[in-house]
Amino acid sequence: MPSDLASILRLAESAAQAGGHVLHRYWHDGVELRDKSEVGGKSYDLVSDADLESQSVIANLIASVCPDHELMGEEDLIGDTDAEHLWVIDPLDGTNNFLHHVPHFAVSIAYYHNGTPTVGVVLNPISGDTYTAVKGDGAKHNGAPLRTATATELSTALVGCGFYYDRGAMMRSTLSAIEDFFAHDIHGIRRFGTAALDLCAVASGMFGAFFEYKLSPWDFAAGQLVVTEAGGKVSDAKGNPLGLQPSSVLASCPGLYDAALEITAKHHPASS
Amino acid sequence: MPSDLASILRLAESAAQAGGHVLHRYWHDGVELRDKSEVGGKSYDLVSDADLESQSVIANLIASVCPDHELMGEEDLIGDTDAEHLWVIDPLDGTNNFLHHVPHFAVSIAYYHNGTPTVGVVLNPISGDTYTAVKGDGAKHNGAPLRTATATELSTALVGCGFYYDRGAMMRSTLSAIEDFFAHDIHGIRRFGTAALDLCAVASGMFGAFFEYKLSPWDFAAGQLVVTEAGGKVSDAKGNPLGLQPSSVLASCPGLYDAALEITAKHHPASS
Repeated sequence: MPSDLASILRLAESAAQAGGHVLHRYWHDGVELRDKSEVGGKSYDLVSDADLESQSVIANLIASVCPDHELMGEEDLIGDTDAEHLWVIDPLDGTNNFLHHVPHFAVSIAYYHNGTPTVGVVLNPISGDTYTAVKGDGAKHNGAPLRTATATELSTALVGCGFYYDRGAMMRSTLSAIEDFFAHDIHGIRRFGTAALDLCAVASGMFGAFFEYKLSPWDFAAGQLVVTEAGGKVSDAKGNPLGLQPSSVLASCPGLYDAALEITAKHHPASS
Repeated sequence: MPSDLASILRLAESAAQAGGHVLHRYWHDGVELRDKSEVGGKSYDLVSDADLESQSVIANLIASVCPDHELMGEEDLIGDTDAEHLWVIDPLDGTNNFLHHVPHFAVSIAYYHNGTPTVGVVLNPISGDTYTAVKGDGAKHNGAPLRTATATELSTALVGCGFYYDRGAMMRSTLSAIEDFFAHDIHGIRRFGTAALDLCAVASGMFGAFFEYKLSPWDFAAGQLVVTEAGGKVSDAKGNPLGLQPSSVLASCPGLYDAALEITAKHHPASS
């Protein structure tokens, strides 16, 4: 790996850990709050504070080391998508899990070089699971190399899915696609609730495939590189390359991509 | 807690840990196997060995301490459901997760006294999370008391669900119920793949409710007591009490039970 990319990877890992420490603190404060009060406005405020503070420490760390790099993030960090150096940050992916105290959420940080995903880090701050990828240098889980599943039949796979916040056409499209996957006799559907970790589950071979009909770029920026560097395929749910815009996403081990794409494209909502 | 129940609880915990050690060993062997071979017959055999060996060590331990107690378990342990002392054992709940190396599966052990669930233990052998309950004495997670969520509106809750192996009417009923829950503006659906742990997620307040249209008694025997002792409600998906037969299941925090029951009953498959 070139030394400049090794430095970028170390910075991305440090930034993810710094964000993770913030989330860890709010996670424990959150436990106390939930014991005292209804889940409602208060907990949303708490989560919002956690998002913002996590992004702030991540952005400040990256900016202090690389002051000329652009930053794009979920919490109102716009970033210039045409920049030579662009960081794409999700300071808390899986907000709903975090809010409901499900220990499955992530910090996701990607570095793009001239528009190409080049370094990615996804960290679950509770379990400590860390997924990293560098373009051309492979993907790793806690330092050990990752490969996607070797499955070639949907009937031997678990399929992960996500539901966008939409409760109309997109939700019904997702349910139709799930029914179609079941018709192909998959082992089962999983809905874990954190897209960045779902992509890492494809990279790890747990899921044969994962799809969601709308995600933001910070949800998939790092995870897509973890998948491709683990030998998998990633596109939108119609087979087009992902960019830096909101998009549907399909990620798969290579042997299931065509079969999964046929299903996700068939049920793709008209509007996206 | 009466001393005889304290002894039963200690025995149930020891038995769950013994089964968990077996699963842990196969989990690591399984990683090596999956690297060498297609996921297929071989991995199924492996899982089957893990199920059987886990049940064997659990049953032998209980029988050595309580030779006059009846044992019912997933792997061909019939048990007399009218016995004064009956143990209901799932040596590996979440087989599909185990097979696909998703670290979310469980050993579930319940003790029934004269047909009443009286002691329950659910253990995730990978994370070490241990849920226990004794009738009248509360539920605990790693020794700390558990309470269900305080939610009173579905629109503030995550809802967990499961899909039986059926790929026909029961699968479609599950999808219809999910759509109906979304129409009630829930925070999200989760499908984690291990019913015993899903019940514990209701007991912990992560899920406002959980439903599945068919489960075996060993899937819910321990988890149902964890839910009720944490202050929640459990029934079949039409509101009838659970027995020792296969059944649909609805578990909920008290404030969401009626609203969830209306949905699960409405979409209940005709055949069960």
